[in-house]
Amino acid sequence: MSDSRPGVADLLGVLAYAELTAFLRLAEEAARHAPTLTDRAALGDLAAAEYAHFRLLRDRLASLGVDPEEAMAPFVDALDGWHERTAPNDWLEALVKAYVGTGIALDFYREAAAHVDAETRSLVEEVLADEGRCQFAVDRVGAALEEDPKPAGRLALWARRMVGEALSQARRVAEARPELAVLLVSADGEDVTRMFNRLTEAHGRRMAALGLTPGP
Amino acid sequence: MSDSRPGVADLLGVLAYAELTAFLRLAEEAARHAPTLTDRAALGDLAAAEYAHFRLLRDRLASLGVDPEEAMAPFVDALDGWHERTAPNDWLEALVKAYVGTGIALDFYREAAAHVDAETRSLVEEVLADEGRCQFAVDRVGAALEEDPKPAGRLALWARRMVGEALSQARRVAEARPELAVLLVSADGEDVTRMFNRLTEAHGRRMAALGLTPGP
Repeated sequence: MSDSRPGVADLLGVLAYAELTAFLRLAEEAARHAPTLTDRAALGDLAAAEYAHFRLLRDRLASLGVDPEEAMAPFVDALDGWHERTAPNDWLEALVKAYVGTGIALDFYREAAAHVDAETRSLVEEVLADEGRCQFAVDRVGAALEEDPKPAGRLALWARRMVGEALSQARRVAEARPELAVLLVSADGEDVTRMFNRLTEAHGRRMAALGLTPGP
Repeated sequence: MSDSRPGVADLLGVLAYAELTAFLRLAEEAARHAPTLTDRAALGDLAAAEYAHFRLLRDRLASLGVDPEEAMAPFVDALDGWHERTAPNDWLEALVKAYVGTGIALDFYREAAAHVDAETRSLVEEVLADEGRCQFAVDRVGAALEEDPKPAGRLALWARRMVGEALSQARRVAEARPELAVLLVSADGEDVTRMFNRLTEAHGRRMAALGLTPGP
């Protein structure tokens, strides 16, 4: 496999814009919703980590001779659309979004890692190593629900909406960028649906971690 | 000099909250106003650097046995007030704010460096080493004004408002936290007004760098 397949620039481009916009949105949500300065700093930590990932991806694109702006441009509408449809209304929603959104992104990295060249893969693995960063969100949501379980139903719906919107934006991207879709499923003839199922299962595990298990 | 003077925790606290909130606001302004993804990333770079500074200051507070949240709390209203009164309306205003705001903060670090213990001073110097990061804002404002000088008058007023609001918030802080004021002027019997004059002069130099020289 070589770096020159068109899908690789797309893959790095979508991840780069996802990180850039996650950074900016998390910072905004930290400023708007965090109840204490410690909470604000905790979400800020996560935002800063997203930015560091963005830089890795941008540098990788540049080293491949690809203009990062051009590589990101095709994905701006889908990712901005996702954020607009999942703007949290309070701190708990912001935490669930941080955890679920980052989780979906990391699943996508994991899928991608199987299909890229070794150098890009080591970058992906560097990002995946940061996975523990979201644990604070799980801890805080868990503590809040222990004190008052009332928001659990609302938060479960909220999380479901987030993954639903993510899948619908992902389908939109896959239709618009067939090279990217091909890259992600090319290895072993599996289809996109199977990948989406895997992402949905991972989401279910995250819901359980948050104490938001789906009803019977 | 020792770390235990009450003014030192205040000094680190005000700088820490200034960095945390600058990070969050710059990220928000980058998301809202940057005309291209490259511009968004450039302001994002600056935001991420502020966050790294915040972390240095937070860790220094913690190593002194001071709760960072408590140390920051007294300065939240003044700094939030400054940001609310200086919310940029467009990209050029955001750039001028980034340059002028960061410049004022660095002046303040420089003043502070003269009055703290060696270990805190090395932290301050680490922050000051980042000074070149704002140059992109100068370059972009310069290029924009070269193309169309019309906004120059508005931007000069905008910058003046920013420094005026900063001085008025600084006076408010100095009155509420006399230990901090004492720390900053204690070394050689100078008064706060002289320090403010020095900050105002530095601001004049920044205006000139932006091509926003005050009229005759």
